[in-house]
Amino acid sequence: MAAENDFVKDITKKSVDFSAWYVDVIKKAELADYSPMKGMMVIRPYGYEIWELIRDQLDRMFKESGHRNAYFPLFIPESLLKKEAEHVEGFAPEVAWVTVGGGEVLEERLAVRPTSEAIICSMYSKWVKSWRDLPLLYNQWANVVRWEKVTRLFLRTTEFLWQEGHTVHATAEEAEEETLRMLATYRRLAEDYLAIPVVTGLKSDSEKFAGAVRTYAIEMLMPDGKALQAGTSHNLGQNFAKAFNIRYESKEQKLEYAWQTSWGATTRLIGALIMTHGDDSGLILPPRVAPIQAVIVPISAGNWQETVLPHAKKILNELKAAGLRVHLDDRDSYTPGWKYADWEMRGVPVRVEIGPKDIEKQQVVLVSRLDRKKSFVPWNGLAAELGSLLEHIQAELYRRAKAFHDENTRPAATYDELSEAMAGSRGLIKSGWCGGRDCEAKVKAGTAATIRVILDQPDATLGKCAVCGQKASHTVLFAKSY
Amino acid sequence: MAAENDFVKDITKKSVDFSAWYVDVIKKAELADYSPMKGMMVIRPYGYEIWELIRDQLDRMFKESGHRNAYFPLFIPESLLKKEAEHVEGFAPEVAWVTVGGGEVLEERLAVRPTSEAIICSMYSKWVKSWRDLPLLYNQWANVVRWEKVTRLFLRTTEFLWQEGHTVHATAEEAEEETLRMLATYRRLAEDYLAIPVVTGLKSDSEKFAGAVRTYAIEMLMPDGKALQAGTSHNLGQNFAKAFNIRYESKEQKLEYAWQTSWGATTRLIGALIMTHGDDSGLILPPRVAPIQAVIVPISAGNWQETVLPHAKKILNELKAAGLRVHLDDRDSYTPGWKYADWEMRGVPVRVEIGPKDIEKQQVVLVSRLDRKKSFVPWNGLAAELGSLLEHIQAELYRRAKAFHDENTRPAATYDELSEAMAGSRGLIKSGWCGGRDCEAKVKAGTAATIRVILDQPDATLGKCAVCGQKASHTVLFAKSY
Repeated sequence: MAAENDFVKDITKKSVDFSAWYVDVIKKAELADYSPMKGMMVIRPYGYEIWELIRDQLDRMFKESGHRNAYFPLFIPESLLKKEAEHVEGFAPEVAWVTVGGGEVLEERLAVRPTSEAIICSMYSKWVKSWRDLPLLYNQWANVVRWEKVTRLFLRTTEFLWQEGHTVHATAEEAEEETLRMLATYRRLAEDYLAIPVVTGLKSDSEKFAGAVRTYAIEMLMPDGKALQAGTSHNLGQNFAKAFNIRYESKEQKLEYAWQTSWGATTRLIGALIMTHGDDSGLILPPRVAPIQAVIVPISAGNWQETVLPHAKKILNELKAAGLRVHLDDRDSYTPGWKYADWEMRGVPVRVEIGPKDIEKQQVVLVSRLDRKKSFVPWNGLAAELGSLLEHIQAELYRRAKAFHDENTRPAATYDELSEAMAGSRGLIKSGWCGGRDCEAKVKAGTAATIRVILDQPDATLGKCAVCGQKASHTVLFAKSY
Repeated sequence: MAAENDFVKDITKKSVDFSAWYVDVIKKAELADYSPMKGMMVIRPYGYEIWELIRDQLDRMFKESGHRNAYFPLFIPESLLKKEAEHVEGFAPEVAWVTVGGGEVLEERLAVRPTSEAIICSMYSKWVKSWRDLPLLYNQWANVVRWEKVTRLFLRTTEFLWQEGHTVHATAEEAEEETLRMLATYRRLAEDYLAIPVVTGLKSDSEKFAGAVRTYAIEMLMPDGKALQAGTSHNLGQNFAKAFNIRYESKEQKLEYAWQTSWGATTRLIGALIMTHGDDSGLILPPRVAPIQAVIVPISAGNWQETVLPHAKKILNELKAAGLRVHLDDRDSYTPGWKYADWEMRGVPVRVEIGPKDIEKQQVVLVSRLDRKKSFVPWNGLAAELGSLLEHIQAELYRRAKAFHDENTRPAATYDELSEAMAGSRGLIKSGWCGGRDCEAKVKAGTAATIRVILDQPDATLGKCAVCGQKASHTVLFAKSY
């Protein structure tokens, strides 16, 4: 097993240097790479396959709730971006501007979309005429650009891939319902597929989307004690409808401004997956979003290509036919030990070993990526057994992450306690908040922590603002964030 | 049926004004719309659903032949684009340049990708090291921008969606094989799914991709006698490998430049679909790429919501369970006649009518979009019958298009004959060509026709160049093109 040891040496241990481990794993597992275009990453096939699985699942959920995909232009004329004042103020500093096209300097600068409210609302003002046209439930899968000074693979890049939903409704109530429905969709994706627990809630005014009335988010707690905003859902009220003149004729034949929402999730989710589940040996992928759920490694002794390989191929086909994503590693140039370490590093949830002895016994050895625990499973009924093991791994990954999340969600009644937590192991720190911008700003300046969400359920034991000691109007979670 | 007549009035007849019909159908069927961003279109949900079907089918074919998806940056630094001389010369005039980002003027301009060879090859030079890394078979689904002076919905837009495959091989032979394999994939997509016959062949030097050694294309003949280039496959030879230093160590431990291909198809295919199959009543979609393959229209007489609708819903669920894409139009605010015309205009291949009499007889009426021919089909076995009718429609659309294609592929032995054809009904005009640039240029200047493809099989009856009368080295197809 010298090869295995060699292998693991290439990756910084997660327990030693979390940030270095994160980059090492991404590069070694070939999920992504830096590109010559500063701040923009390349998503390599293994990373992109994870994105395809996330995207397809989210897309199914959107379609089940009546949403349809469309595609809007990449460029947004500056005058259009300026129509909603808060919106342009929030996004202008991050915009990449096209100023030359077809060899000529353009009369008007074009923003490379940082988000698409402006261009989409300009179309909605044409398309929405009557209450019969509502609700209008559209989504777009696209790339967006936001100029970033400091970037990190998957977590913060100048270009990223995302989906952005943009809906139009007849009433304020329906818009709020939609905002919360999509927030719940993100929660379901995170918890049931990515195996990452989330906390949901409202953003404070200083953290909300530029142009929104209310922003909700799902927040995840990473192993280094920092929070990751992993999806946002905005109730836009009538802000954009008024700026872009989106009006409909009601059943009572009155012309009314419409109510809108927008919501998005990005390739950042892949970063969350990596950080949450990986260990010192590399990546661990939850089976539901693993491009390869099980890898078959034949024991390559003697004339294995005649003896073992045919059985391995038969098992591959059976497992594939059962709908499992299985890969057979039949490379001759690597030892089984090297392959074990390589696929562990790539986070494949289950390894299927098969050698001459197993063939005699008509069995295989299943090895879980979680703990290397082995089980000997007969060929007969293998797909069902493997399916159960995958479900077990999926559940166990969630359970582990949930335990960490809960252990590291702690109260702080005073500024000192809050400050101490942020200087130590961090986590999601629950505090009372008076609702004042000054108190929020003081925490940020002093501890670098921000309000991640305002909780739905106030905590009666945190009745006073941790900063000013006045009566708390909200219970919030403070954290340092990505 | 007054409603139906009203309806059809909104669309110019295809037989009267083809260009006006094309735009009318796209706008009325809500496939796409013009946007405030000049030259860039919005793809509306019904149009995007067609794209999803085309994309998913092509993606399946790519994956079956061992290709994997990845994602590369949208922006390409100018210095990188300049590395391959022919390439930059070909694309620079069409580039949109980002010059400002994050509030500052950039030191180097960034091209919004017009195609991704430059950025992808810069990564391949890092990733390709050994013969073991080859072949490298990657594809990307992305948006690209090419500045266009004159645009047309779907056919030529400043931004479009496409896939671009980029592969690396150890030998010239393998690269050529791949180039032809992907050309054949495009042919299969066009003929078996879009029901559009194509002719394939090599491009002349003046029409080939900037930086390629050889470009092959699939060309379609549109009803107005103009050709549409609908997919291209390039053998890049070692041009980019040399410019970007993509080298691998061979089995013999020698450092060799790699061989490459690239190939692409775009949202333009939707334009081809619309033009080829539609008629005076609107769109006709081939069932394999129709978002709605059959629409159920209940006859809304009396208390139809209690009597007819429950049966319609049952049939909907049965047909959906059989894997068919079926929609039930249960709107109360429109008459059946209005709905018939509306869904015909939207190109749904089959209408399923059901009324009180049909319920008595436990049957439905199937109406084909091709010729409005009715068939009375019992509920029992309906899914299979509908499936057969859809297959029939798919085949018949191809047969019609093929007949037109063949009828309008005609020989011209002399320049006068060629010129006459172009002044008349146009079409694909088969001629001998000496291989000279001057003769090619003379045809273009005099008739606006260009060489669409050089045919694999020379036609012995066209032994002389139609322009200069010298010995023909090739048989080519001339046409005016989109």
